[in-house]
Amino acid sequence: YPVNARAKEVLGVPCLAKVEDLPGPVDLAVIATPAETVPGLIEACGAKGIPNLVVITSDFSETGPEGAALERTVVAQARQRGMRLVGPNTMGLFSAQSSLHALMPPVEPLKGPVSMFSQSGNVGTQFLAWGVEAGIGFEKFVSSGNEGDLTCVDYLRYFAEDEATRIIIAYLEGVDPESGFLPAARQVSRRKPVVIFKGGRTGAGSRAAASHSGAMAGSYNIYQAVFKQAGLIEAATTQEIMDCTKALTTYPIPRGNRVAILTRGGGWGVITSDACEENGLIVPPLPEAMIKKLDKILPKYWSRSNPVDMAAVITPEPFMDCLEILAHWKGIDGVIALGGRAHIPGRASENPLVRERLKAQEGLFKQMGAYYQGGQKKILEFIRQLIRETGKPIISVTMGPQDYHKESMEVYKLASYPNPERAVRVLRLMADYGKFLASPE
Amino acid sequence: YPVNARAKEVLGVPCLAKVEDLPGPVDLAVIATPAETVPGLIEACGAKGIPNLVVITSDFSETGPEGAALERTVVAQARQRGMRLVGPNTMGLFSAQSSLHALMPPVEPLKGPVSMFSQSGNVGTQFLAWGVEAGIGFEKFVSSGNEGDLTCVDYLRYFAEDEATRIIIAYLEGVDPESGFLPAARQVSRRKPVVIFKGGRTGAGSRAAASHSGAMAGSYNIYQAVFKQAGLIEAATTQEIMDCTKALTTYPIPRGNRVAILTRGGGWGVITSDACEENGLIVPPLPEAMIKKLDKILPKYWSRSNPVDMAAVITPEPFMDCLEILAHWKGIDGVIALGGRAHIPGRASENPLVRERLKAQEGLFKQMGAYYQGGQKKILEFIRQLIRETGKPIISVTMGPQDYHKESMEVYKLASYPNPERAVRVLRLMADYGKFLASPE
Repeated sequence: YPVNARAKEVLGVPCLAKVEDLPGPVDLAVIATPAETVPGLIEACGAKGIPNLVVITSDFSETGPEGAALERTVVAQARQRGMRLVGPNTMGLFSAQSSLHALMPPVEPLKGPVSMFSQSGNVGTQFLAWGVEAGIGFEKFVSSGNEGDLTCVDYLRYFAEDEATRIIIAYLEGVDPESGFLPAARQVSRRKPVVIFKGGRTGAGSRAAASHSGAMAGSYNIYQAVFKQAGLIEAATTQEIMDCTKALTTYPIPRGNRVAILTRGGGWGVITSDACEENGLIVPPLPEAMIKKLDKILPKYWSRSNPVDMAAVITPEPFMDCLEILAHWKGIDGVIALGGRAHIPGRASENPLVRERLKAQEGLFKQMGAYYQGGQKKILEFIRQLIRETGKPIISVTMGPQDYHKESMEVYKLASYPNPERAVRVLRLMADYGKFLASPE
Repeated sequence: YPVNARAKEVLGVPCLAKVEDLPGPVDLAVIATPAETVPGLIEACGAKGIPNLVVITSDFSETGPEGAALERTVVAQARQRGMRLVGPNTMGLFSAQSSLHALMPPVEPLKGPVSMFSQSGNVGTQFLAWGVEAGIGFEKFVSSGNEGDLTCVDYLRYFAEDEATRIIIAYLEGVDPESGFLPAARQVSRRKPVVIFKGGRTGAGSRAAASHSGAMAGSYNIYQAVFKQAGLIEAATTQEIMDCTKALTTYPIPRGNRVAILTRGGGWGVITSDACEENGLIVPPLPEAMIKKLDKILPKYWSRSNPVDMAAVITPEPFMDCLEILAHWKGIDGVIALGGRAHIPGRASENPLVRERLKAQEGLFKQMGAYYQGGQKKILEFIRQLIRETGKPIISVTMGPQDYHKESMEVYKLASYPNPERAVRVLRLMADYGKFLASPE
């Protein structure tokens, strides 16, 4: 029900003039009117028996002592009536289960197992939008705003209990040390992974945070220690949050940090090895028995070591055969499978003159394109099967464009990455989490 | 001219049976036949007066002492005849000026000002493919292979002289310390930027490199020192090479490391500030005079500090007004402009039920979509103009999908990034290069 004191309708939907006119029981009121009108509206909502409020309105504690006083009044009012309040100064919330889109920006998240709370509405809703592009679905989202009543700790505990939520992600600027965040996070992490990103790690960032959410960012060292103790997965960049979330929705947690690398090109094996070692992952040497097995599949000039460099063999079948051997190798906990470019063009050239000259071969090029595209699909299905068999993450790196990675998520339920460094970072974060899970409680 | 001992035609193009049958003078021979046939072919090419060879054939020094001996023979043969040789074990080369596509994989690079040499064919040609997706055009490319004759130092010197090349990028595994790389690089860096990525930085990576290109990766510390001394721009990841290259083709080099940040959302300002400080960039406070100027444009609750948080003002005009003031601020050397999502949907919802209900408003949503899309274009054009006026890089961060960034490059000649951390890294690398340029020779 839109309620507006002046408008008769909003976007063609008829409006009620005031809260009192609501015809029946209502579960949630979303308030987006100027700050000075909020106390009156809360009274009206309370009288109507509405138990929950989302206060989008800003100009509260984030703008100074006057706003802070108003915020205290508003929260006290709500609590007195037994109402709970999200915000104020929130960008709203989303719930897939109840198809509730109470968000300020025009984003429509995909549905999925991820729930997020965010101390920045802009950052949080951007993640929802990135999810649409990456094929990552959300279950619940809340922009926590000024946290006048409900706080991050409440949202964390709630997502822990929520059965539809399998993965939790959070953007955090500051948490009250007295809020019980650490013990709550420790408990939650045992049950489901929590990916966290801390804004205000530096002096410049903290100053910006103070003027943004009013959060006292505090010492980043202390936060880092808390995150580690609590088994939270700390992402180093905003890109990494999405990368890691994608992996957690589709891959099992590795039981250790030993990695096998399969590549079609030697240089990419080098780059992946460097990234592994720089991230504390181990690239163990291939045992003699493995080398013998691979000798049967690969041309004589293959690398005979880990990374397994297939040396320009580009058909899908040997790739899958190698992958199977590596995935079952007891000496490793995960595989990075460098698949190369997904897009074999399916035609001779972008240049019409070349195409004209090779016109008679059009069918052949189409066939080749279809063969390699089909091969990619076979590989993705095979990887899924190997993951089920071995319980190990087998991370696909395919250097094609964004659409390809989205299809990989949506159709094959497999996270894939456009370069090996991003895959390695994800594996490292997952390995750290695996170590936490294996540690005594 | 295809030459093949057995086939009468290749892909419908008639073949000559042997080199001797070539009807006229030829500038370059590309050899892709088994290793044992190469010496005979070089003799034949020499007799025919062909001055240049690209030897794609592998199974030379990269596979052991026998191959190394054959490689020495082949190179000696070529030199005796006054021929120069790329490879062996190369993936070929590309030249935009002469429309020469002598590449192994089916990639067709965009044309542009970037030239690359790569000690891995797979890595190098992947960059050409990424360039197509990112809107980065190449002038010349060479996969250096085993460098039996021509080496990286030759390619570096050649690209330095080549007028069509404005930016040089390189993937490097190992360079002979006696090859004169350092003095050559020092000279080249003064004239044009050289972006470098080192494979084999770690133990695991060096071992992989030894079995790949046979390169003795050597101590990474020494390489880093050399790169720094020579003013090379060292990218930390493969993604960063592309990010940095894109910026160098479109932005001026900053004269210092002080950054103004403009954002529509506070959280993104925090994240950008953190990334700046972690990368040695300074986010200076706003002078009182600037605050006064911005007060006239922004709502009373704006941040009043750098980052300039516009606090949810989303129309294009105030954004451009702020940008103009910040770009002309004498206290900074570059601007990061966080534009938010580029894609305002031109319709009410992805959900057909919602669309049905808001059917009467379809025109309004279309209008809004067009308004914001048009706004984005205005902003990009305005940024270009501001760059010309101020000589400072104004880096656009727009969190939309890949296509948007490609359009920004191809149509507006502006690099833009999908998150602020990547923009900050690019600015930092450019600032380091600016410092090198300002240092005495």
